[in-house]
Amino acid sequence: MNSSLDSELLPTVAEVEAAARRIAGRAVETPLLESPALNERIGGRILIKPEQLQRTGSFKFRGAFNKLSRLAEAGGRAGAVVAYSSGNHAQGVAAAAALLGFKAAIVMPSDAPAIKIANTRSYGAEVVLYDRQRDNREAIAEALAAKMGAAIVRPYEDHDIISGQGTVGLELARQARAAGADLDAALIPCGGGGLIAGSTLALQAVWPRLPVFACEPEGFDDTGRSLVAHKRLGIAPGAKSICDGLMAPTPGRLTFALNDRQLAGGIALSDDEVFKAMAYAFQVLKLVVEPSGAVALAALLSGKFQGRGLTVGIVCSGGNVDPGVYAEALRSAI
Amino acid sequence: MNSSLDSELLPTVAEVEAAARRIAGRAVETPLLESPALNERIGGRILIKPEQLQRTGSFKFRGAFNKLSRLAEAGGRAGAVVAYSSGNHAQGVAAAAALLGFKAAIVMPSDAPAIKIANTRSYGAEVVLYDRQRDNREAIAEALAAKMGAAIVRPYEDHDIISGQGTVGLELARQARAAGADLDAALIPCGGGGLIAGSTLALQAVWPRLPVFACEPEGFDDTGRSLVAHKRLGIAPGAKSICDGLMAPTPGRLTFALNDRQLAGGIALSDDEVFKAMAYAFQVLKLVVEPSGAVALAALLSGKFQGRGLTVGIVCSGGNVDPGVYAEALRSAI
Repeated sequence: MNSSLDSELLPTVAEVEAAARRIAGRAVETPLLESPALNERIGGRILIKPEQLQRTGSFKFRGAFNKLSRLAEAGGRAGAVVAYSSGNHAQGVAAAAALLGFKAAIVMPSDAPAIKIANTRSYGAEVVLYDRQRDNREAIAEALAAKMGAAIVRPYEDHDIISGQGTVGLELARQARAAGADLDAALIPCGGGGLIAGSTLALQAVWPRLPVFACEPEGFDDTGRSLVAHKRLGIAPGAKSICDGLMAPTPGRLTFALNDRQLAGGIALSDDEVFKAMAYAFQVLKLVVEPSGAVALAALLSGKFQGRGLTVGIVCSGGNVDPGVYAEALRSAI
Repeated sequence: MNSSLDSELLPTVAEVEAAARRIAGRAVETPLLESPALNERIGGRILIKPEQLQRTGSFKFRGAFNKLSRLAEAGGRAGAVVAYSSGNHAQGVAAAAALLGFKAAIVMPSDAPAIKIANTRSYGAEVVLYDRQRDNREAIAEALAAKMGAAIVRPYEDHDIISGQGTVGLELARQARAAGADLDAALIPCGGGGLIAGSTLALQAVWPRLPVFACEPEGFDDTGRSLVAHKRLGIAPGAKSICDGLMAPTPGRLTFALNDRQLAGGIALSDDEVFKAMAYAFQVLKLVVEPSGAVALAALLSGKFQGRGLTVGIVCSGGNVDPGVYAEALRSAI
């Protein structure tokens, strides 16, 4: 491990537990689902954490609410926040801001799914659109934040965001134990790496040697390749994917410091495998899942992860998808 | 009440509790879901029992497994069964037969949703198609049963079916109490009336005066009208509905004897209201729900049931819907 970060500066499971107390009663405690049909197909026991059932339709609310609660505690009151996001972090921050009384401005790419832009506005946030090819979203966000006197809420390079997202793993572990299950492996979507970094802290507090795999879109498998190299590698230019929420150009510095010591490896999924998983979720699981949210399920269904004989926890991280994209997934997968 | 059935011949909550023990570990204990967005829209607390997450994608597996378990107990072994159904009862019986070692033949209308016919076959049952306009399904089923030496598993006129479906209400009541909630009302889909009859037995064992409403498609509101008249009335000829699972021509004799004494009334929903509820389930709840399964949600969202200030339990009874129908619902509702 060649991380330049000191161990004592990394998020801990104690921070995840503190985040869980902070979000209790505001975030949904999503259930842990099990489908006999999926178990039979895989020949194992699959425990699904469905974060599309979370407030705002993805896990992102957890980290956002934790972060804004901490800002309000530190500042003695709610202030203003700025975030940049392709959509789910945007909605999470906007909803948390509305609940806690913050003013929020969100910088979003103009080609983000319409449902994500509309939902972000519906929580009362100001949406500032930028061109993904031409503009620098961090620069736009920083200028806005300076003008508003606002704090920037980063999507994953932040202790409070990572520990908030980690409550997904904390609940998954507790609910699995309550169902009499011990995990043999976990599959978790990975973009910037906050969800998987925080969740693995909590999962490995219960099962110290648990193999946890980062599920990424092909072309955006920067964490998977970085895990092999033990250093942060970027994506190749020109990569495209249907997974609009997993397009981080490199692993985060903080998230990768955790992921490099915690994760067993990466699994990269094609658009076709993701579409098939979305169709399966619709037809068999009866769950709406967005492309980025379907990568862990795709890893199982594609056979790229062999679940036979194993108890596997998977996270479906969100369900904010335009109906037209779902229709395409259903057509292409049948 | 002018039921000709003796009280002591009606199903009881003790039978529902016995059914729960019989199906434990075979049926999915579906979670009780709560959506902050739905609560805010209605201005109340809405607790959703999502039976699309049940084995076979609808509540029907519960009654079927209970009935076939009883047949196996009574006969000392698994035998053969025949059922007639537009689809969800078909799948429930086929899956229960496969698990318990019964041979099964299912009589289905040729215009049933393709997904329901395909799924029924996938459980190993023989499917016999009939013409909904021309043929008499009961006669076909009886001839088949005589030939096979099989028992007929009726969709709702049966103690063991009613008590099996009643486990939905039993779980709903227990899960609501565990969430610190006392119901003010419940909304439950009603076709032949088995689900609502059995579930209300269990719900009113916890909350004796709980108002429970039968949600039906317009044109097939036979239970609602029969509740007003206190006698079993049939539907008007020529009625059409998108709700393929709720097209019973009259209330059942056994189910109506219970429903007449238990229910507060009926609510009839138009196709448009059902489509809008399906679109809402997709976009906000992230759940796939079939038309018949969406009527209780439609009663709330349409305002035909006023949920403001109330804690309301609703059952989403199934999710077996062809993608094309869902696409139509999404288009028409936006």
